[in-house]
Amino acid sequence: MKIFTNIKDIKKEVRQIRKKKLTIGFVPTMGALHQGHLTLMKQAKEKNDLVIISIFVNPLQFGPNEDFQSYPRNLKNDTRLARNAGVDIIFAPPVKEMYHNARTFIDMPNLTDKLCGKSRPGHFRGVMTVVTKLFNIIQPNIAYFGQKDFQQALIIKKMAQDLDMNLEVKILSTIRETGGLAMSSRNKYLNITQRLHANKIYHSLLKAQELIISGDKNYNKIIRRIRSTIKTIPKSRIDYIKIINPETLEDMKWAENKKILVAIAVYVGKTRLIDNIIV
Amino acid sequence: MKIFTNIKDIKKEVRQIRKKKLTIGFVPTMGALHQGHLTLMKQAKEKNDLVIISIFVNPLQFGPNEDFQSYPRNLKNDTRLARNAGVDIIFAPPVKEMYHNARTFIDMPNLTDKLCGKSRPGHFRGVMTVVTKLFNIIQPNIAYFGQKDFQQALIIKKMAQDLDMNLEVKILSTIRETGGLAMSSRNKYLNITQRLHANKIYHSLLKAQELIISGDKNYNKIIRRIRSTIKTIPKSRIDYIKIINPETLEDMKWAENKKILVAIAVYVGKTRLIDNIIV
Repeated sequence: MKIFTNIKDIKKEVRQIRKKKLTIGFVPTMGALHQGHLTLMKQAKEKNDLVIISIFVNPLQFGPNEDFQSYPRNLKNDTRLARNAGVDIIFAPPVKEMYHNARTFIDMPNLTDKLCGKSRPGHFRGVMTVVTKLFNIIQPNIAYFGQKDFQQALIIKKMAQDLDMNLEVKILSTIRETGGLAMSSRNKYLNITQRLHANKIYHSLLKAQELIISGDKNYNKIIRRIRSTIKTIPKSRIDYIKIINPETLEDMKWAENKKILVAIAVYVGKTRLIDNIIV
Repeated sequence: MKIFTNIKDIKKEVRQIRKKKLTIGFVPTMGALHQGHLTLMKQAKEKNDLVIISIFVNPLQFGPNEDFQSYPRNLKNDTRLARNAGVDIIFAPPVKEMYHNARTFIDMPNLTDKLCGKSRPGHFRGVMTVVTKLFNIIQPNIAYFGQKDFQQALIIKKMAQDLDMNLEVKILSTIRETGGLAMSSRNKYLNITQRLHANKIYHSLLKAQELIISGDKNYNKIIRRIRSTIKTIPKSRIDYIKIINPETLEDMKWAENKKILVAIAVYVGKTRLIDNIIV
């Protein structure tokens, strides 16, 4: 496994790979790898000749009062995990390598200012910008994202279409702890009691799914029900609970008979957790 | 010479070209081709195996009160000119092929809101977005732009760097009519008298150059001098006259001993003309 930290070197490597007509599967990460990331990597390995991952805690997607400084970083452990998952190349650049005097950004009104974008202004702009840079550097055939970050995955998929990028964006199912909690690097912030309580997020999503499948169209009632479950988590604060159209992120109209997204964001202590389910 | 109007087909063609390891020179245009465009194409032909041009009047870069509807279009004549210039492929998509439900845009604060961006809000956002799409579709080795649109060329060059695009952006000198007027598709809007008077734009730039080279550092005086020359053009209205740093587009400091950009935008009748010189 090779590790690159500068853009010029990995671009050279990618040119060599391209010359040999090998396909590249790409998994962009912020490190602190967990089973969710590793599942994306294994899938990438199965479907492509080579797997490249990036490990980069992207300052552009953190707000001024968010956890950029404290975000978990452990390159040594990540390297070990990636090697075991069959990754061929890690790209782990320092911040100044990625943003040397850069001014360009990418955005997508409507989709970036809803849900997580509402509580985290500029977040998705930062995500879109760094992902475009990474796509241009790595030139993957397929890029993999997890469904846990549903809005992110949707925005990146739409961005790739809108800008005619030459790659496929694949969104894979959320991987969960035994108790149901969606895997996330931020779970490291939780203590044992918080972790146990945080399982209620997924349980309330399952309950919502059950109600929707059984034909309940009173979404406000369903949301109230989720809310009352989440509120039993000590020191929690609900950011949003939404039942929406998974393509537009707009509220559902009753007449619609399509897929339905139930999405939750909640602070448990100081830790912001998100999860969702598609019915 | 081949002509493509849809993205899927030209992407397929580009993949074939890439397989043969041929290099692509690309000249994006809005059509109404003139000697300036043709010079870019000839240069592209000299330095690359193949030349692709795009002809697309991009609605995204026109303001609501600008000349999108009346912008000169003549695909038949453009095709003839391009063929004679040695162009291999023309990409001339309809608007709905390029913007099918698209929401993504690219911007670059500081550089896009100055000079032409100040009088044409959203203009450079539209340019950056369409050029990124075209770059992803055509995948050129080198893309060519004219210095007449200096701010546009600068922004695209910087965008390509910022986003780690895999191509080189070349800026070639402005081509001029015999009288000195910078070639532009919008010159078609001018009547004979206006054309003659419009030569004064370049003459005033040459005078400014002469004064700067001779050591005159009183830029305000030089700007006043340009202004008084331009004002003799009948029915003219000055948008801006600037003496600035060609990298930042900021006002020059006296101490600086670098290149200096003198840039002008002026309405002659209803026609907006721009020109510049680097000293």
